[in-house]
Amino acid sequence: MVKPAGPFKTPPSRRLPPPAAPASGGAGSLGPGASAGPEAAVPTTLDGQGSPAAPTRTADDPGLRASARSGIPAFEVMRITDEIARRRAAGRDVVSLCAGEPGARPAPGTLKPAGYTGPLGTGPLREAIAGHYRSWYGVEVDPGTVAVTTGSSGAFQLVFLAAFDPGDRVALASPGYPAYRNILAALGVQVVEIPTGPETRYQPTPALLDAAVRAHGPLAGIVIASPANPTGTMLGRPELEALVEWCHINRARLISDEIYHGITFPEPGEPDPRGVSVRELDTEAIVINSFSKYWGMTGWRLGWALLPTSLVAPFEALASNFALSPPAPAQELALSAFTDESYAQRDAVVKGFARARALILEAEPQLDWGIAAPSDGAFYYYSELGPQLERFPDSVAYARALLEGADVAVVPGVDFDPVAGGRAVRLSYAAGEAAVAEALERIIRFQR
Amino acid sequence: MVKPAGPFKTPPSRRLPPPAAPASGGAGSLGPGASAGPEAAVPTTLDGQGSPAAPTRTADDPGLRASARSGIPAFEVMRITDEIARRRAAGRDVVSLCAGEPGARPAPGTLKPAGYTGPLGTGPLREAIAGHYRSWYGVEVDPGTVAVTTGSSGAFQLVFLAAFDPGDRVALASPGYPAYRNILAALGVQVVEIPTGPETRYQPTPALLDAAVRAHGPLAGIVIASPANPTGTMLGRPELEALVEWCHINRARLISDEIYHGITFPEPGEPDPRGVSVRELDTEAIVINSFSKYWGMTGWRLGWALLPTSLVAPFEALASNFALSPPAPAQELALSAFTDESYAQRDAVVKGFARARALILEAEPQLDWGIAAPSDGAFYYYSELGPQLERFPDSVAYARALLEGADVAVVPGVDFDPVAGGRAVRLSYAAGEAAVAEALERIIRFQR
Repeated sequence: MVKPAGPFKTPPSRRLPPPAAPASGGAGSLGPGASAGPEAAVPTTLDGQGSPAAPTRTADDPGLRASARSGIPAFEVMRITDEIARRRAAGRDVVSLCAGEPGARPAPGTLKPAGYTGPLGTGPLREAIAGHYRSWYGVEVDPGTVAVTTGSSGAFQLVFLAAFDPGDRVALASPGYPAYRNILAALGVQVVEIPTGPETRYQPTPALLDAAVRAHGPLAGIVIASPANPTGTMLGRPELEALVEWCHINRARLISDEIYHGITFPEPGEPDPRGVSVRELDTEAIVINSFSKYWGMTGWRLGWALLPTSLVAPFEALASNFALSPPAPAQELALSAFTDESYAQRDAVVKGFARARALILEAEPQLDWGIAAPSDGAFYYYSELGPQLERFPDSVAYARALLEGADVAVVPGVDFDPVAGGRAVRLSYAAGEAAVAEALERIIRFQR
Repeated sequence: MVKPAGPFKTPPSRRLPPPAAPASGGAGSLGPGASAGPEAAVPTTLDGQGSPAAPTRTADDPGLRASARSGIPAFEVMRITDEIARRRAAGRDVVSLCAGEPGARPAPGTLKPAGYTGPLGTGPLREAIAGHYRSWYGVEVDPGTVAVTTGSSGAFQLVFLAAFDPGDRVALASPGYPAYRNILAALGVQVVEIPTGPETRYQPTPALLDAAVRAHGPLAGIVIASPANPTGTMLGRPELEALVEWCHINRARLISDEIYHGITFPEPGEPDPRGVSVRELDTEAIVINSFSKYWGMTGWRLGWALLPTSLVAPFEALASNFALSPPAPAQELALSAFTDESYAQRDAVVKGFARARALILEAEPQLDWGIAAPSDGAFYYYSELGPQLERFPDSVAYARALLEGADVAVVPGVDFDPVAGGRAVRLSYAAGEAAVAEALERIIRFQR
């Protein structure tokens, strides 16, 4: 789990301020909402020094240690966002292809004051989400099995707690979304990484899972994503059916991250244009989704899980203790997500992603990189750097040099793949056509 | 951890719908936002039955089991809220003294579309929170050690993960907020309950902690709350200093839940009118607070933690994986929480709580209950039922009869104290003067 050092790996918040001097105001540890000016102007000191009663620890008292399980890597994309904010605050014209965050966000208008809702969300929203499955996938979902959550993040942590005990083995495709592995590890679950590549479209297969069982022992579950982050690749219906069957035979929980459904680029007449939901195939599988990507509600922190009936009560017990309720204003806003008008608006946003994606695919020959994953969906393009690795030792060094030399931010693959990610980068084209065009031009110029 | 059965202990969502008939629409498992009418009108079936491809499990296939660690009790107050909503939907005039939720909530006005923020919140909000400590407690807090979280719930789960490993022992006062014990248990931490009573104002003391260590072994931490839920009792400065010292000597983490600070009823000239923050006494202690109680922002899910510098990086790593960022619209709204105008508005709300509290204290002689905790702060009144237990076997039966017979909802103490809670009830006077007056009249009439 220890990650290689690099430009994004030594965040300023890990550098403790000197004990006697005033702290810098935490420019490094403050989020992107911070602006450098006001921070620098705030005279902060080490906390507690203003209190005459505060006991001081002596130099040979090391203090209490953090838990062993907190030793997971930070999700570095969130930190790179900070780095970009700092550079922009310093006047740099940075084009960022880092964040998995659509720019077109719904405006909330005026909201009512909001109190707690039930731990699994409001009834009307749970019914509206069930209706979404009727509308997009033609399946009936009992609203009582829909759990509204604090983003897909809130769903993942509670599903992992509800489904797995410490020591259980859970398999993930590598490259993959780093929070899966980091949350599971912090909760004591043994993560089995399934290395994938172009031969399986960077997706797990029954054969790869069989191999993982032979190497590590039985699996309690697998987490899949289609479209996937960082690769954008999708599982077709036959491939998904094969994984469902494998999980049935092997008594493993199937958890399907469908957060990028709807952000897809199908040919006219292609079946399953939004993606195949595992709920179409298996009522025991767990679906996780969110309002953050297709609907662009990232900052609102609202998602959901579809649960097998046997997991509803355990999940609700966990949710009522760990979260009390998902955010209420977000639930109110999300009620309008499933109208024809909203779908049309969001599909227009996806068309913008399609144009940005086309720019990258057209530029591929000039990029002089290596093998890229087929960017079926989401808004990600994941590529090996190929010839560039003759000039740069790894993707971390490449990304650092690109940011320094061309003011373009991309994410090195180490976040997504601790083994092979040093050779790859992820571009997010959620930034839109203009940003992508500018970034591509700068990258090609930079590499000359 | 197994709780006694009772009216609130068999939630409808645990009753699985019959396999062949249409589900009820989940009236029982849907939150308080649900209205009975539309739910009943939605023809839902068991999920997945609409898909011809869905594999069916045979009757002798038990399916996968939930994890052992998910076997924590639900936080029952949230379920009672559902029960109240159902009765109201059925036309009953229920007065609820259940929810720990102020009625006076700030109106957000118009919000901007919101994206992710940094994992520890926006810079300006972290600085504003630091400023709050300067203003209320006269202590300097480094904004870099402030972590904005998804409610105090988000802070508790991440602090517990960052501070404790599985098997660590953490002590709590009993009665106490049930989510402390339930989150800790789900995360594999061994909960040591410290039974408390009127002789220590229902608060832990060094002597009680020493006894706990003798009985169970060394403690990795203790969680304290002042004002406490459900008792409302507070720790004075000397008592808090003694606990700080005990933790230093015993190398235990001190986690101080200060969510009810400011909801206090001091005599004129009384020191520390808002409560004593442990951050005034110890920079190694962890403070947890929220915008939900004093500021009435329950549904927005926004809180914070003050961390020792050594825990900032581990906490940030956890937060960036488990939550990505706290809700952004709530962070925007919360920026206006620390103005003189806002403090004045919220103090006026607290004055309303004071009037409601006075009604209960005046009615005490007619209530014919047993010993009550001194209601120093928060908006809770926790009392043994005394003579009422000659008519009712326990507080669960009492609460059920009171709801049936007088349409008054109170929380039986079993949520807060698995051992002695069967003899006590909690009233929340956050409902306000009028509701409290009506409820008291009904209770006294019901008991005649």
